[in-house]
Amino acid sequence: MELWYTEEHTENVRFSIKVKEHLYTAKSPFQTIDFFSSEEFGTFFTLDGLMMVNEKDEFIYHDMITHVAMATNPYVKKALVIGGGDGGTVRELTRYPGIETIDMVEIDEMVVRASQKYLPLTASQLDNHRVNLYFEDGIRFIHGKKKEYDLILVDSTDPIGPGEGLFSKAFYQDCFNALTDTGILINQHESPYYDRDVREMKRAHNKLKELFPISKVYQFHMPTYPSGYWLFGFASKTLDPLKDHQREAWEELGLDTKYYNSDLHQGCFSLPSFVKNMLEE
Amino acid sequence: MELWYTEEHTENVRFSIKVKEHLYTAKSPFQTIDFFSSEEFGTFFTLDGLMMVNEKDEFIYHDMITHVAMATNPYVKKALVIGGGDGGTVRELTRYPGIETIDMVEIDEMVVRASQKYLPLTASQLDNHRVNLYFEDGIRFIHGKKKEYDLILVDSTDPIGPGEGLFSKAFYQDCFNALTDTGILINQHESPYYDRDVREMKRAHNKLKELFPISKVYQFHMPTYPSGYWLFGFASKTLDPLKDHQREAWEELGLDTKYYNSDLHQGCFSLPSFVKNMLEE
Repeated sequence: MELWYTEEHTENVRFSIKVKEHLYTAKSPFQTIDFFSSEEFGTFFTLDGLMMVNEKDEFIYHDMITHVAMATNPYVKKALVIGGGDGGTVRELTRYPGIETIDMVEIDEMVVRASQKYLPLTASQLDNHRVNLYFEDGIRFIHGKKKEYDLILVDSTDPIGPGEGLFSKAFYQDCFNALTDTGILINQHESPYYDRDVREMKRAHNKLKELFPISKVYQFHMPTYPSGYWLFGFASKTLDPLKDHQREAWEELGLDTKYYNSDLHQGCFSLPSFVKNMLEE
Repeated sequence: MELWYTEEHTENVRFSIKVKEHLYTAKSPFQTIDFFSSEEFGTFFTLDGLMMVNEKDEFIYHDMITHVAMATNPYVKKALVIGGGDGGTVRELTRYPGIETIDMVEIDEMVVRASQKYLPLTASQLDNHRVNLYFEDGIRFIHGKKKEYDLILVDSTDPIGPGEGLFSKAFYQDCFNALTDTGILINQHESPYYDRDVREMKRAHNKLKELFPISKVYQFHMPTYPSGYWLFGFASKTLDPLKDHQREAWEELGLDTKYYNSDLHQGCFSLPSFVKNMLEE
């Protein structure tokens, strides 16, 4: 017997992975959660049938959501992760000894518990003593907070289902208010290739651009996401990721990173012309 | 009825495209050629069942194989394209008024003729007066030539079937001999993600590194190729793509490029750590 997981990247494009075993399936109050094992990607999990994380390329996403901001401000003391139930983003943050507190707000506790059971590669640091887990709505959690966080990482799903409110202007405004004066927001920014992803990329970018004095976009290769081409938004009150890049301070930390490095930090903001044009529209 | 084209990116990963019409199929002396139309990618064609070119993302590949070299040496007078039967690489070269002669050597005339019929978007300049078409084996064509070309673009298929010899050391040595003292070779360099592509990437890179004083690798997003993550090798006798980058001279040409731009020229050589490590092995 052959078992194949298939994701529709668009209604005309499908991506399929040969599965060894369907390890887990559950309907939480928010979404359907499935874990699989596979030859090519190791263990992977999906939410509502969309690939979230797998053992082969999770390092790319988690390097890029974390280290670009941390190398712009290596002096972050208090960080907030919104979403990110697999734990990979928290894991990368715990590698910085200077970070004193990491709050993680994940709406769906079942994602966290299943990740701890089936994906210890990403979930390993969720019980770190500096980490506080909150199982509640990130939108409500952040509302009303003032200058509390040096860094907010929005590690969300697509803007459908539980992730939708995380792409709203009110939410970004609350993030702005919750950030300190040197605060940085990193936002899961979708992709510039297929039409639906392009729409969401533009919507997110236009909202952040209106709110934050500095708003840039950087790119990376994410082979298991639609088109393999993914973006994060970098929004901040004062720090510029290129001009304020603390190359030496970051390198002195001696972190061994499989995707991120100091040259790539500079390079990943050099976007293709068609992406720059779309972001300016 | 639904018609789907499926490519096996590995034996455990499949990429499928909904097809409107199977426009053309033929067995040439070298390979099986198929052209399709599709909603998502427009017209696309495959060789031996592998995606070569489509109307949606061909601009990325053809920008990147051409303009990085041309912005390093905007004074190229004589260029050679090996492979590239769809014509997209030649089309980009014809945009430079300073190039006097473009030789294109494609082993399979049927690919060229079918591209002229079904893919005018890429094949439009194959009858340009500066272009000479040679339907013969690129390996034999280049052998024995001395300092004749300022630029050689190896626009090959994967190193199986007719493309295999284009990844051999003897071929790269012949390219070296055929290049002028400021000559540049750009090589289709495979991908750093799936195992088979990684092997070919390393083999190609190690051979070029031994022969050329300057040998670098640059990256781009190619959504319809396996993993969406693709590389070109930049090998040259004297010119360094970063130090000798002729930003102003290139920008003065006023070429409107959809993917390539001067910042991206610098950024695309900043590779992730895992790729750098694999290239050094």
